[in-house]
Amino acid sequence: MNEFLPAGSAAPVLPTADASCRLRPVPSGAARITGGFWARRQQANRDSAIASGPERLEAAGNLDNLRIAAGTKQGDTRGLIFMDSDVYKWLEAAAWEYARNPSDELLQAQRDMTALVAAAQEPDGYLNSVVAAEGRGRYRDLPWSHEHYCAGHLMQAAVAQVRGTGDRGLLEVAVRFADHLVETFGEDRRHDVDGHPEVEMGLVELFRATGNRSYLELARYFVDARGHGLMAGYGKEPTYFSDRVPVREQTTVEGHAVRAVYLAAGAADVAAELGDKELLEALTRQFAHMVATKTYVTGGLGSRWHMEAFGDPYELPPDRAYAETCAAVGGVQWAWRMLLATADPFYADVAERMLHNGFIAGVSLGGGEYFYVNPLQMRSGAHPDENRSPAHGRRGWFECACCPPNIMRTLASLDGYLASTDEDGVQLHLYARSEVTAGAVRLSVETDYPWDGRIRVRIDETTDAEWTLSLRVPAWARGATLTVDGDPREAAPGSYAAVRRTWRAGEVAELTLPMEVRVVAADDRIDAVRGCVAIERGPLVYAVEQVDQPEGVVVDDARIDVAGRPEAEHRLDLLGGVTVVTVAGRARRHEAAPWPYPPASGSAGGDVSGDRVQLTAVPYFAWANRELGPMRVWLPRS
Amino acid sequence: MNEFLPAGSAAPVLPTADASCRLRPVPSGAARITGGFWARRQQANRDSAIASGPERLEAAGNLDNLRIAAGTKQGDTRGLIFMDSDVYKWLEAAAWEYARNPSDELLQAQRDMTALVAAAQEPDGYLNSVVAAEGRGRYRDLPWSHEHYCAGHLMQAAVAQVRGTGDRGLLEVAVRFADHLVETFGEDRRHDVDGHPEVEMGLVELFRATGNRSYLELARYFVDARGHGLMAGYGKEPTYFSDRVPVREQTTVEGHAVRAVYLAAGAADVAAELGDKELLEALTRQFAHMVATKTYVTGGLGSRWHMEAFGDPYELPPDRAYAETCAAVGGVQWAWRMLLATADPFYADVAERMLHNGFIAGVSLGGGEYFYVNPLQMRSGAHPDENRSPAHGRRGWFECACCPPNIMRTLASLDGYLASTDEDGVQLHLYARSEVTAGAVRLSVETDYPWDGRIRVRIDETTDAEWTLSLRVPAWARGATLTVDGDPREAAPGSYAAVRRTWRAGEVAELTLPMEVRVVAADDRIDAVRGCVAIERGPLVYAVEQVDQPEGVVVDDARIDVAGRPEAEHRLDLLGGVTVVTVAGRARRHEAAPWPYPPASGSAGGDVSGDRVQLTAVPYFAWANRELGPMRVWLPRS
Repeated sequence: MNEFLPAGSAAPVLPTADASCRLRPVPSGAARITGGFWARRQQANRDSAIASGPERLEAAGNLDNLRIAAGTKQGDTRGLIFMDSDVYKWLEAAAWEYARNPSDELLQAQRDMTALVAAAQEPDGYLNSVVAAEGRGRYRDLPWSHEHYCAGHLMQAAVAQVRGTGDRGLLEVAVRFADHLVETFGEDRRHDVDGHPEVEMGLVELFRATGNRSYLELARYFVDARGHGLMAGYGKEPTYFSDRVPVREQTTVEGHAVRAVYLAAGAADVAAELGDKELLEALTRQFAHMVATKTYVTGGLGSRWHMEAFGDPYELPPDRAYAETCAAVGGVQWAWRMLLATADPFYADVAERMLHNGFIAGVSLGGGEYFYVNPLQMRSGAHPDENRSPAHGRRGWFECACCPPNIMRTLASLDGYLASTDEDGVQLHLYARSEVTAGAVRLSVETDYPWDGRIRVRIDETTDAEWTLSLRVPAWARGATLTVDGDPREAAPGSYAAVRRTWRAGEVAELTLPMEVRVVAADDRIDAVRGCVAIERGPLVYAVEQVDQPEGVVVDDARIDVAGRPEAEHRLDLLGGVTVVTVAGRARRHEAAPWPYPPASGSAGGDVSGDRVQLTAVPYFAWANRELGPMRVWLPRS
Repeated sequence: MNEFLPAGSAAPVLPTADASCRLRPVPSGAARITGGFWARRQQANRDSAIASGPERLEAAGNLDNLRIAAGTKQGDTRGLIFMDSDVYKWLEAAAWEYARNPSDELLQAQRDMTALVAAAQEPDGYLNSVVAAEGRGRYRDLPWSHEHYCAGHLMQAAVAQVRGTGDRGLLEVAVRFADHLVETFGEDRRHDVDGHPEVEMGLVELFRATGNRSYLELARYFVDARGHGLMAGYGKEPTYFSDRVPVREQTTVEGHAVRAVYLAAGAADVAAELGDKELLEALTRQFAHMVATKTYVTGGLGSRWHMEAFGDPYELPPDRAYAETCAAVGGVQWAWRMLLATADPFYADVAERMLHNGFIAGVSLGGGEYFYVNPLQMRSGAHPDENRSPAHGRRGWFECACCPPNIMRTLASLDGYLASTDEDGVQLHLYARSEVTAGAVRLSVETDYPWDGRIRVRIDETTDAEWTLSLRVPAWARGATLTVDGDPREAAPGSYAAVRRTWRAGEVAELTLPMEVRVVAADDRIDAVRGCVAIERGPLVYAVEQVDQPEGVVVDDARIDVAGRPEAEHRLDLLGGVTVVTVAGRARRHEAAPWPYPPASGSAGGDVSGDRVQLTAVPYFAWANRELGPMRVWLPRS
């Protein structure tokens, strides 16, 4: 019996009571971000991104596509075949945002858009505006058609709408489509899967919202059908589509990064609801291999522009990092499900890193401009050769607009990632100024995290019985302490600092995380950053941007003196208020040689030539919010 | 007056007498490779690659496409839109090969295939089997349709056929197509260019072969039309198509690597025939920037799989090097034209590096299996995720089969790159056991180059007048000597060692190039190989392949001790006879850490941990001819 189960359901992942989960999420509403770092990003998300979503979808043709499919407008559809998914992701974002902060205007916008979606649905439940309007024929090209992918986003949006607003309009559409899928695909029906996983998460959540077990069973089928030659049947090389190896046998992540992590997240949902230990073990193994060999220091996923893929182990180029914003979203989704299943703080650490770096770098501080690709280095004279290129700077929208509404829905649902409960009490995972209500327990969290390491948790209401308050201590936080009743004790990094007692209202637990600047290196096998270091502070990874450097220092040629003592200073005037780091280094401008491969010198040591300089680093997430210029996360050692 | 003009015309580039060229090529036939390194590769090219070409083209559908277009076969065409170009490249290869070594069988095969081509030509001269048979409409999508690209290869093949065999069948087809192009495109006709340059080279050579100046003028138009928004008119981002900047204003190479270098080579032809100094200067600047900032140590071109593109300056990852075999072919074509125009040995050096490394690595020692992509590193467990992946090893053919017949035509015409003449004498550029006849002068070259540095040039026949024999001294050849009459003198690297005298038959000039193993580093700005070194010997770049290393040493983890003395040994038993290099180093197998970004240690020096080992390196071109496994050109310093 979990007496700490919170009220409300405004969470994207809400396991059933029978699910094999060590932890239960505290939904948005029961958990509320009330100020600070994330509140500001959520405000920008609300005011700029979500508010302008309907206009963006109108301008790009997504809404017209639905009207054309419904027969209320003439003409050809526009855009990529999965244009509907952007509509669903916006609807999901709007629903979570409404749950955080209701407004009639936002509700009406959702209802209007829901009506467009409902009108485009076919009588038997099928729904895809582009496939239908263009007469391409259903399910003829599942590797590319994204029909299930769109369905999955519809289901997630529908669940968000019912949980976030109480409206059931989109849920009815989603249920009809899901029923149609159940009638069409499965072990004893058509054997096939979508080239882009996503429907697995949607089906499990729809099962959770409706109790209809056939959705869970279909999700299980889709997970287990992969790796048995379905894509090869379409003449496709299976790696890209996560179809080379059965999910239960896979030992790594490979192929298209977003597809791979979406599949894994959906499989984690299936494993939780079925209590499928074998599947959970396979996912544990894959996640560990991803983090050990295929994850950027920013938490970014996906090394290759070509096929938007994970690379080989340790193939992690900073300049050509793809690290798609959507892959960070998928990484957080997967990590959160693994955390709920296992209660292992490792997953919360990874999610924190992704959220504070690789994910939030994908949107401007103003909230309305996006990066699709999140490199860790940009050189002088980097040339934008296509729409997605980060050398353009952040952009308002993309031809393939998957990332912007993915950011919107993630930020709008972020309150739901703060805390969880189990039978023994409450766990805090993500630190923000916030309030958490779980059963009879109410907590308020005061902190300036991620700028400051003090996290002050006050018990506002409590039961008379003993219960455990657990506070995550990140693995980087060596020397952390937890103070209760004025009694500081060591808090082990990479664990939950837990206090079990009979709490009284007004009592405070204060976690202090050390916020010294950290200089980190990379495993020798990450060839692309050999001899380089990166700067971290708290959960943030830093970047050296051209605009902050002294005159004459070009970031391409800057090196860091590891023996120097980096210093941190919070600057309210900069980038909306960030802590900057200054570090000693050297810089030298080289002339280009006619041939760049000279005889090797005898010395293997660091290069100590060049002028001594002070380099300034800003949080990686904030780069490219002023001038766009050279940038490096990894700098050579001086 | 150039009295050294050789007989024959079997050369792919044959400037007119009026062209602004410092040097004139010695055609195949007048120059003959008679044995040694390249002769063996040419033999394999003849026996395996060219011999099996017709079967490959039959199996892949190229020949059926022509039959379908001609109406002699029913059905749908197969393959990519530029399938005809592979037919033309094979025809070109067969013609040059026939010139080297005539055979009735090879002549008949060319005549049969030429008849197929001629039958597919439309009455007005237009010819493209896929466009015609599929009813796609002419020139509707020039960015992608490759219609001019195929025409250019047709022209090159036609010129090869008439020069190499005397047959005029293909020339008549090419002239009709060229006349059609002249009527259709140009300053006062339709303004447009093909997305893939190539036709420029073809048109200039067809002008050279026919004297029809309208072909030269159209080539000039195509060169100057780029960079003025034609691709943008199709809604395309122009970089990929070499259409962002006018050729005369461009300062670098960018976009699709093969397109960029093909365009530059064609522009060099135009500049030569028009005496266009401005254009030549622009090309000189671009070539220099390419070599200084965008060329691999192997001479490979193109850093990116994504869009098969040149990267930003100094973006040269070894693992994800694209370095398409066709880009090396294009690089050699461009370098050769620049050499003829300027007589600057820099271009011959670059061509030599490309030929001995990035180019010839693209084909197996047996001659019949190909690499499309030529990386400088492959890791343990590298996973082939598509057709072109080098992790498959070399393959018999590709869906996009541009590289195999490009290798065939280059090897078959290689004799034509040995030597040139000017009014003052004869220049030798590429060293091979060979014979060169230029006017009344006949030379024979004895050498075991690239294994041995002695190049012995014997004057077999000569005139009574003074003339100059010039022997290229590569820029790497510090300490080279030239001996004539037993009198050795220093030969400056990066120059032509020239001896002007009245030669007598039987006299010998002996150039000695130092063949010490060289350890080279990379410019600091080539971030991807920071702290690494590569091994060179003579014109060859070396690679450390897993199969040659002691038990327990994994190439991924091997490092080179730069202070050690590398040793070279010629091994007749290995890879058909290669000189191997052994070098001291260290190797240590690491366990994977759960998180690969540990705190930086204080030391910036080389890593001296791990076991001392002897590493064995083989010429890069020969890699992946035994087991396919980990390989590195660049290894960290120990």
